[in-house]
Amino acid sequence: MENIENEICFLSENDSRHAIKVLRLKKNHRIAIVNGKGILGKAEIFEANPKKTKIKIIELEKKSKPLFLALAFCPTKSNERNSFIIEKATEIGVTDFYPIISQNSERRIWNISKFEKNLIATLKQSQRFWIPTIHKIQNFNDFIKNQDLPILKFLAHCKQSSKQKLSLLVNHKKPQIIVIGPEGDFTNQEINDSLKHGFKMVELGKNRLRTETACLVSVTLMKF
Amino acid sequence: MENIENEICFLSENDSRHAIKVLRLKKNHRIAIVNGKGILGKAEIFEANPKKTKIKIIELEKKSKPLFLALAFCPTKSNERNSFIIEKATEIGVTDFYPIISQNSERRIWNISKFEKNLIATLKQSQRFWIPTIHKIQNFNDFIKNQDLPILKFLAHCKQSSKQKLSLLVNHKKPQIIVIGPEGDFTNQEINDSLKHGFKMVELGKNRLRTETACLVSVTLMKF
Repeated sequence: MENIENEICFLSENDSRHAIKVLRLKKNHRIAIVNGKGILGKAEIFEANPKKTKIKIIELEKKSKPLFLALAFCPTKSNERNSFIIEKATEIGVTDFYPIISQNSERRIWNISKFEKNLIATLKQSQRFWIPTIHKIQNFNDFIKNQDLPILKFLAHCKQSSKQKLSLLVNHKKPQIIVIGPEGDFTNQEINDSLKHGFKMVELGKNRLRTETACLVSVTLMKF
Repeated sequence: MENIENEICFLSENDSRHAIKVLRLKKNHRIAIVNGKGILGKAEIFEANPKKTKIKIIELEKKSKPLFLALAFCPTKSNERNSFIIEKATEIGVTDFYPIISQNSERRIWNISKFEKNLIATLKQSQRFWIPTIHKIQNFNDFIKNQDLPILKFLAHCKQSSKQKLSLLVNHKKPQIIVIGPEGDFTNQEINDSLKHGFKMVELGKNRLRTETACLVSVTLMKF
């Protein structure tokens, strides 16, 4: 919810319905609230209105922002698989998603709004307090030039070339980003260009992984 | 396919249709075949019958069996999520699945046959040669007494107690098994019983993970 910093505020229509109709909360019941921006609060129901529940904030706690852990990937044709990537990577702890368009991308237009809605539920479920940022979809060539990316930049591909095991390069105490390619892999030119911009080439073992599996395996290795 | 050891053999009805109707293969075309039991073969189409294609084996290669890497879990209510666990864990490299019934299990009957069918496609996709074994569903109490399990036996739960980080205990050069609990977690009694049988208690970080995410995170940490 938003405007959590005010002493008196309102639950959204969705949350109001859920609180009053589903959970059957009444006036004076205590609830826990999050705003997706690091604040966890305790509140009390003031007016149990199923469309616009008024609540009174009792206590607010500020949770520190987690370390930058980013996943850049080429959205697949199937939005079910894209949704899966976002959801699971959020549970694991990804803070930033960079959807990218590479030469072999299957999808060049991507509407992120439907994914963002799901994130709130995932956040609540996994007891996290910061909603990850889904950046705007951009071309691979623009993405690799981004000056704001951390020093630990990894790119995974399946071509024969000099690569290191991701598990040997990760450092969960530093900001990190991994780039996972499309089903058709990155082109040689894209690989060379990313090398010039400081990306380290990595591999994820002998088994050939599907896009969504590669995404989850790599962020797991970076997080733990 | 089966009976791959004979010089002349037949593709299944499914594979025959796929080869002849979809891929439009003709007599003398070369194909690669696997039997899910470590054999990779080269063969030639002998009779392009869309119901029962006869092939001639040219060359067989025996791939060594991968190291035991097992996942024991309580199947969830949703078979979509169960299917997802099996598929992704197979890609990552799990060799054995142990479905178990614990006190808080959501599902006590589980038909594995539909999952096995999917495994062949996953195997082909990830370029693996051994189909994992899905063991029969069994009670947690019977499972933990199994004498055939390796020395490295981990059990993940969310209760407050003495636990170590899984990432510090794993050893990808040894046989390993991890047990992931149901949504309602293992009971204290189950935890104590598994301790008595040599299981090590582990945790998977601060974020609370859904069952399927916990399964994939743990097997990733064990594999890499």
